[in-house]
Amino acid sequence: MMIDDMVTVATPGDSATDERLVFYISDGTGITAETIGHSLLTQFAGLRVNTQRFSFVDTPDKAREALRQIKAACGERGVRPIIISSVVEEAVTAVLEQSGALILDVFGPFIGRLEAELGQQRARHVGHAHGMVDFAAYEARINATNYALTHDDGGNVNYNEADLILVGVSRSGKTPTCLYLALHYGVRAANYPLTDDDLENMDLPRRLVPFRRKLYGLTIDPERLRQIRQERKPDSRYATIAQCRKEVAAAESLFKAERIPVLSTTHTSIEEIASKVMSALGIQRQLF
Amino acid sequence: MMIDDMVTVATPGDSATDERLVFYISDGTGITAETIGHSLLTQFAGLRVNTQRFSFVDTPDKAREALRQIKAACGERGVRPIIISSVVEEAVTAVLEQSGALILDVFGPFIGRLEAELGQQRARHVGHAHGMVDFAAYEARINATNYALTHDDGGNVNYNEADLILVGVSRSGKTPTCLYLALHYGVRAANYPLTDDDLENMDLPRRLVPFRRKLYGLTIDPERLRQIRQERKPDSRYATIAQCRKEVAAAESLFKAERIPVLSTTHTSIEEIASKVMSALGIQRQLF
Repeated sequence: MMIDDMVTVATPGDSATDERLVFYISDGTGITAETIGHSLLTQFAGLRVNTQRFSFVDTPDKAREALRQIKAACGERGVRPIIISSVVEEAVTAVLEQSGALILDVFGPFIGRLEAELGQQRARHVGHAHGMVDFAAYEARINATNYALTHDDGGNVNYNEADLILVGVSRSGKTPTCLYLALHYGVRAANYPLTDDDLENMDLPRRLVPFRRKLYGLTIDPERLRQIRQERKPDSRYATIAQCRKEVAAAESLFKAERIPVLSTTHTSIEEIASKVMSALGIQRQLF
Repeated sequence: MMIDDMVTVATPGDSATDERLVFYISDGTGITAETIGHSLLTQFAGLRVNTQRFSFVDTPDKAREALRQIKAACGERGVRPIIISSVVEEAVTAVLEQSGALILDVFGPFIGRLEAELGQQRARHVGHAHGMVDFAAYEARINATNYALTHDDGGNVNYNEADLILVGVSRSGKTPTCLYLALHYGVRAANYPLTDDDLENMDLPRRLVPFRRKLYGLTIDPERLRQIRQERKPDSRYATIAQCRKEVAAAESLFKAERIPVLSTTHTSIEEIASKVMSALGIQRQLF
């Protein structure tokens, strides 16, 4: 059974009546619609939304099923729903227009201007952006992901192939950042956890010396670090505030002495850390 | 040294004169601009683009530096560049308008309609979408990522906590999909590699039986599998076409006999696999 032709959406939970229902509808994955929709909605302070995604809505029949679910979700609410759509097929869009929702077509305002600029019409193929596979690009992502997975422990590894090496104390955010860089940009990111020995020596670990220009430091607020470690290893020495303070202070001193660029991850999302690391090290890769 | 205030972009390589230069400019990470820009540009068949990203352009001074680099990159080319911008600050946008480029403001067409619908003005805070950190949401991502990392080998693990379990032969795409699901949707995805023993038995591995409703199968074209394995373990038995054909046929028979939903990853991007798995299993999570 190939699952290619279904529309699934969870029923919304109980929710306050002042919440806005927002539906992301796409004939592909819905990633583009949700990305721009999220960016738009976060610009409205205090707005509370309940979002649902309908992916792979590429026929009028599937659009009618989505419409039925949208109407059921809206129920008796008097508030107009918002649809953020990246649907390309006009016949699908025509169905969605029967919803009475505010519909934001994320491609609509741009296609005409691009067609005029490029002197060609768009091809109405659906799901191109996140559906097509370029084998070479795919391999770059997978190889970078494997690299991150096998260079995640600071073990006896070869850093020659690394595009960059993240350095920091345990749980400062290195691993998810490395995986994000690999999956999204095909960047080979290794990860060196500073050990107690490293931090007592206050010297750059010898194995990192030849790769100084690839180093980027991550630091974190000690209290936030304590929370993260406490969840991972409750009531261990590792999770005491004293230990967290000591390690963070030593790591920051090391970064300063060795002039390693550093970013605090405390209030920084994985996307933002990844983006800032690449900017700082001058690594320019296309987002997958 | 905190690296918070620089604009870096690689110089474009040698490129054909019929390529379009496309610049993604953002006062945040640039992820939103690049995501929608990529979706738009892939709708134009045969279009060749050379893309560059300027992140964290949040002051007129940084915009002037970006402008200088854009002009240098365009050089003598007679072709008008395209700027895809998610910049919120009007003073920054005013600088970019001096470029002579076609500027697509990815928020512009939607903000007015949303303001009217919601009865409130947007807050002009920059970089909200990918910059802010909600600690609870962050922890969900990190915990899911740790879960994927520790449940990646089919070892003696507890599947009770899994939202889903991907099943397939070695190198069919399970690991990157699990990591993507964790990083982007906070979904706890485990990963069960079908072994020779499993495939000879033709029974559902006993440890998976209690979790039947969480299972999703990945399959792949045997020739494509051979290529991937050949790169990983050159000239091994593991990488022969005979072995790949045998394993894939046995896995597909197992999925069919056990009525496990299955998707071929051969021509499917990681994003699309992740999206289809969630749709099929009825898992509804917000994209981070």
